[in-house]
Amino acid sequence: MNLPPEQSSAGPARLIVLDGVDGCGKSTQALRLVAHLSGLGRQVEHVREPGGTTEGELLRDLLLDRDSDLSPGVEALLFCAARRQLLEKRIGPCLEAGTSVVCERFHPSTFAYQAFAWGLPEEQVLELLHGWAGSPEPDLTLILDLPVQLAAERRGVSTDRIEDRGVDFQDQVALGMKRYAEVCFKTSVVIDADGDEDQVAARVAEVVRGVL
Amino acid sequence: MNLPPEQSSAGPARLIVLDGVDGCGKSTQALRLVAHLSGLGRQVEHVREPGGTTEGELLRDLLLDRDSDLSPGVEALLFCAARRQLLEKRIGPCLEAGTSVVCERFHPSTFAYQAFAWGLPEEQVLELLHGWAGSPEPDLTLILDLPVQLAAERRGVSTDRIEDRGVDFQDQVALGMKRYAEVCFKTSVVIDADGDEDQVAARVAEVVRGVL
Repeated sequence: MNLPPEQSSAGPARLIVLDGVDGCGKSTQALRLVAHLSGLGRQVEHVREPGGTTEGELLRDLLLDRDSDLSPGVEALLFCAARRQLLEKRIGPCLEAGTSVVCERFHPSTFAYQAFAWGLPEEQVLELLHGWAGSPEPDLTLILDLPVQLAAERRGVSTDRIEDRGVDFQDQVALGMKRYAEVCFKTSVVIDADGDEDQVAARVAEVVRGVL
Repeated sequence: MNLPPEQSSAGPARLIVLDGVDGCGKSTQALRLVAHLSGLGRQVEHVREPGGTTEGELLRDLLLDRDSDLSPGVEALLFCAARRQLLEKRIGPCLEAGTSVVCERFHPSTFAYQAFAWGLPEEQVLELLHGWAGSPEPDLTLILDLPVQLAAERRGVSTDRIEDRGVDFQDQVALGMKRYAEVCFKTSVVIDADGDEDQVAARVAEVVRGVL
């Protein structure tokens, strides 16, 4: 008889979130983390939000389209719907099959953009996210923290209606990300993302080691 | 100086919802009610859910598409998002301008389908709807009650993934609609929709008179 996947010799499947402002290095570090976990003998899947499912990609198009006219409240509901779809159709089945998942963006983004920066009540947004897109829960949420001006230089020209909102807005988002890590301190860690790719990857790997 | 719209001689603008199972006569009675209110000198707009805005129509397509693979939880979030969009972009501005609105489908449908028939917790769905799509509130919610077999004959062949679900499911939906009217009894009324169009229209007009 085979061991159930969660008891495989490489250790149990984990859901690890990487979040942070546009340009902080999420995609680069997600790829590095996937390679790192693979190197440790783990099966790993890489997803990004919003999207990752057929229906979620349609919602992504609607959310990022410059012609869309959506309030923060409608945005929060749509991000939450896309996240639940991703959790149910992709992340949940992966974890059950023993495959770990590295996910770019998750609750911290919705909290930082729609609540902290746009002013929806924090408590109401957290209840929405944890009540309606709360399972499976991430084992670890990493917030990559980089001065906003530096992040803006890294990301270059904005390409969608959310990136369009400028540096002052990104400042608020950065503060909101750190606020999320304070409120949800049990599974969230802020990581200094200033430095070269290898340095940041080493910091990420060090924190991730604690949940493997 | 003109009177503000809400004090026009025809009376204040009202939001009136017509809900009920597929085939109960919502569209017919909505048209009748619009004609009736217009006859009383009211400005009236007619909307249907989900939809009524550019973004809401995209969500409608996703929700009704037979290729969509959505759980009741994701459906509830998407219906709620489309409703909030409709409230903010269309119903709210109408009411502020002194125009009444007749809306086909609203909270009772989400409660009846996603909670009562599909099993999401009733309290959680009501909190979502009232917390995230709660303003402006309908002045009156009418549930058109018709035996499900009769409604099925009236509506004919199903045309989307929600109508596809069959008569036993519609039975649960009908019970769920009445349950909504019990829980939200202050602004909800169940109306007998068995009878010819004129008879039902007269019943609707009689109840609506109470909020004009």
